[in-house]
Amino acid sequence: MTITGKNLIAGQWTGETTDGFNAFDAHSHEALNATFADATEFEVNKAINCAYDAFVSYSQLSSEKRAHFLRTIGDQINALGDKLVETACTETGLPAMRIQGERARTVGQLGLFADLLERGEYQAVIELADNDRQPLPKPDTRLGYLPLGVVGVFAASNFPLAFSTAGGDTASALAAGCPVVMKAHAAHPATAELVAQAILAAVKICNIDQGAFSLIQGRNYAIASQIVTHPQVKAVGFTGSERVGMILQQQINQRPEPIPFYGELGSINPQYIMEEKLAQNGQAIAQALVASLVMGQGQFCTSPGVWVVVGNENAANYQGFIDAATQSLSEQAAGVMLTPAMCQSYNNAVNARKDIAGVSLLTSGLSGRAQDCSATLFTTDFATYKNTPELHEELFGFSALIVRCDDFAQMMEFTQLLSGNLTASIHALDADLTLSKQLAQTLAHKVGRLIYNQMPTGVEVCASMHHGGPFPASTNIRTTSVGSEAIKRFQRPICYQNMPQALLPTALQS
Amino acid sequence: MTITGKNLIAGQWTGETTDGFNAFDAHSHEALNATFADATEFEVNKAINCAYDAFVSYSQLSSEKRAHFLRTIGDQINALGDKLVETACTETGLPAMRIQGERARTVGQLGLFADLLERGEYQAVIELADNDRQPLPKPDTRLGYLPLGVVGVFAASNFPLAFSTAGGDTASALAAGCPVVMKAHAAHPATAELVAQAILAAVKICNIDQGAFSLIQGRNYAIASQIVTHPQVKAVGFTGSERVGMILQQQINQRPEPIPFYGELGSINPQYIMEEKLAQNGQAIAQALVASLVMGQGQFCTSPGVWVVVGNENAANYQGFIDAATQSLSEQAAGVMLTPAMCQSYNNAVNARKDIAGVSLLTSGLSGRAQDCSATLFTTDFATYKNTPELHEELFGFSALIVRCDDFAQMMEFTQLLSGNLTASIHALDADLTLSKQLAQTLAHKVGRLIYNQMPTGVEVCASMHHGGPFPASTNIRTTSVGSEAIKRFQRPICYQNMPQALLPTALQS
Repeated sequence: MTITGKNLIAGQWTGETTDGFNAFDAHSHEALNATFADATEFEVNKAINCAYDAFVSYSQLSSEKRAHFLRTIGDQINALGDKLVETACTETGLPAMRIQGERARTVGQLGLFADLLERGEYQAVIELADNDRQPLPKPDTRLGYLPLGVVGVFAASNFPLAFSTAGGDTASALAAGCPVVMKAHAAHPATAELVAQAILAAVKICNIDQGAFSLIQGRNYAIASQIVTHPQVKAVGFTGSERVGMILQQQINQRPEPIPFYGELGSINPQYIMEEKLAQNGQAIAQALVASLVMGQGQFCTSPGVWVVVGNENAANYQGFIDAATQSLSEQAAGVMLTPAMCQSYNNAVNARKDIAGVSLLTSGLSGRAQDCSATLFTTDFATYKNTPELHEELFGFSALIVRCDDFAQMMEFTQLLSGNLTASIHALDADLTLSKQLAQTLAHKVGRLIYNQMPTGVEVCASMHHGGPFPASTNIRTTSVGSEAIKRFQRPICYQNMPQALLPTALQS
Repeated sequence: MTITGKNLIAGQWTGETTDGFNAFDAHSHEALNATFADATEFEVNKAINCAYDAFVSYSQLSSEKRAHFLRTIGDQINALGDKLVETACTETGLPAMRIQGERARTVGQLGLFADLLERGEYQAVIELADNDRQPLPKPDTRLGYLPLGVVGVFAASNFPLAFSTAGGDTASALAAGCPVVMKAHAAHPATAELVAQAILAAVKICNIDQGAFSLIQGRNYAIASQIVTHPQVKAVGFTGSERVGMILQQQINQRPEPIPFYGELGSINPQYIMEEKLAQNGQAIAQALVASLVMGQGQFCTSPGVWVVVGNENAANYQGFIDAATQSLSEQAAGVMLTPAMCQSYNNAVNARKDIAGVSLLTSGLSGRAQDCSATLFTTDFATYKNTPELHEELFGFSALIVRCDDFAQMMEFTQLLSGNLTASIHALDADLTLSKQLAQTLAHKVGRLIYNQMPTGVEVCASMHHGGPFPASTNIRTTSVGSEAIKRFQRPICYQNMPQALLPTALQS
């Protein structure tokens, strides 16, 4: 398990690391020793062409063999042991327990798709012929699914395992029958290499065409551009910022052949605290929101970034909520961000927010070393929020903004101002039900997941999950990047008409 | 049922017809009397804004009420009686029997979606809470579907009813809960107005918000651009040429917010005749292909435009097939095209094909009046096809190209050259099975529907249909414009987490 610093191009570790790049220790902000090769145009092209060549054999593997491959990847990731956990902790600053949990989720996701494959064709529809139908006979028609082809995947900075090398996009694309060309995130290249080693081991154990998976290292934007505009790439998965996501979308828009771009971008995840809830449980909900906010320094796409409350500044209920939130947040430890650059961005964004007229910093969390960031809690009123577009943007990290509304009508107006979000929560009591229902009907059209009395952090990986939502939460509103439905992104329907059994895929035979 | 020539903007007939445009009698090529208003920017904007305003009430209608609305539209279309048939026949040149069949299909499609709505939520997934799960409890999660918002639909020239005003796109969008702003095709504006009258009658009978449907008339490209770039339009359905479809796609690509564009564009629908089939049934298959080709003057997106055969020019089997096809086609009547412009385009394309070196005109069908077109049958060899990109493009109308391959390997190479198609057929006998299987595995990746021993014309409207395919057959490879799955284009998933029953949509309640 030595780190080579090279790219994995269809089974071969290649690349020149002497002029490459380093990852950083997220805790010390110092460059790590290992040097990684920026993939060359030749290497990227080779990875994609080998993936294309592997498509025929890989897409024709039986479901059972593909399921076995996915489970073997999971086994090989587990076999990396503590080395993987230590490496990921160093590169991301996330604690070991979180990385262990994320590893379990990653292996679990691979197992979920393996289960799906073992249960047979996903949502096939078989309608037999009816030769007696009038005025025309009904032909035998059967709806099945085919993999799209080579998939380009971009790793996320904030989930070094679950949304990275063998994460949800890779697992669902491989499950669908698509070879994957993976662009590692430059913030955790050693973690990426270790997981790629596990995938390569599984490729060899399962005797899969080595073109079915390649890992591309690099910091160079030209690499991303080359991947998304390559004619043999038929779909792209991405988790990251709206800024980078939209650069990729615009490059994809230049292609002669449109392909789906599954970008999971930003989200402010508004939290609504209804009036009776505020009155009865204001302090408890304030503490729970702070706890959700500071998890992993708020570096989750589902972090609760904006809290919406109806209240008068002089009212005891409202002030009790504010006091409890302020108190709780002020006690929160400082922490490290995923990268030195993200630490800098967070501090810059917090400082910019401090300067906005009508916005007050209620409190900061505890301070730490120069490399650490502190949590922050801001407040503003609805009128300021409405007139200040910067406040509508995601502030990535453990900073929340409380928006005070004068009444429920303003809370509804706030909802109309929202752009798309991954999630929103309504915190309410039975006594709030009439207004909660009115809110839910409007709010549903702004989110991918609508939550009641629970926090948005923590995404269940299951068949009924939806992790997506209206733009900019997702560039492709009809798809999810978490849960079993994620496989559909990399498959497309095909109707077989009047086919003899021998020409049908196994799952569609009578 | 007087034709007003006006636009239907949210229940009001508006527009200035004195400076408008005329449709043409497809048979005589003469301008028809009725004059139609080019919609103004103000009218288009009003239609979209009224649709947006209607979204809340329309999307919250119960499934039963939406189903009743769809069936009422169907009843009102039937109530238009012979006037609709006569008008469509005059504007399109299609025979009455075809228009009557298309009307039945259109009403049937509305009924199919009504059935779907009456059966309840489409593919909902309910996963209950498990509070005892370790290490974390499982929340209650339920996957449902929400309508996207206002949908822009562009009518097709070649299906004045089934892919036009109340066609598949409109029916599936209205079924999904989306208001529709319909751009009529300038080739059959009176037909469009009659159907819009039927929809308006249904709107009134069912007490639907009149913003839920508007009909935009016009020839002006700026109208199309305004519709697809309007911020309140959340999806676009289009059936037409690759050229126009890609203009719309590029305009949509300029939007700040990406929206899905469901363009169903061109297709050559290759027909493979396998060696034993050629030997045993060469003449019969030739005649059947000609019959499929000349239906509606070949103005179908599934018309069999290219026939692929393995054969030696001196071999009796091959020559028998060619002779039978030539004989059959030469006896086919001339016919009118949908518009004078399409007649001209067809004749120009046929003349251009005649001039391509290596391509021979085997025969033309019978000739007719100056306004009529004649069917044509061309032949070439694989090498010429491979080296002549113009031959890879769709020639819209009743012209077919026979591509002679030396052997099965060339037939496979031909398959690799294909871009995306709506359909392909393999015509084969049991003795061809081994090669057919090999062909089917490759060909499946080039088409949306793979057919065995049947003609591609005639698209079954059912749950297992797929009418789409790789680009340029479709701009959105994962969706179908025909069959019950078409509704998914205008819905998107949403996960409800831990919601009380009272806040869940009816279909997701326990």
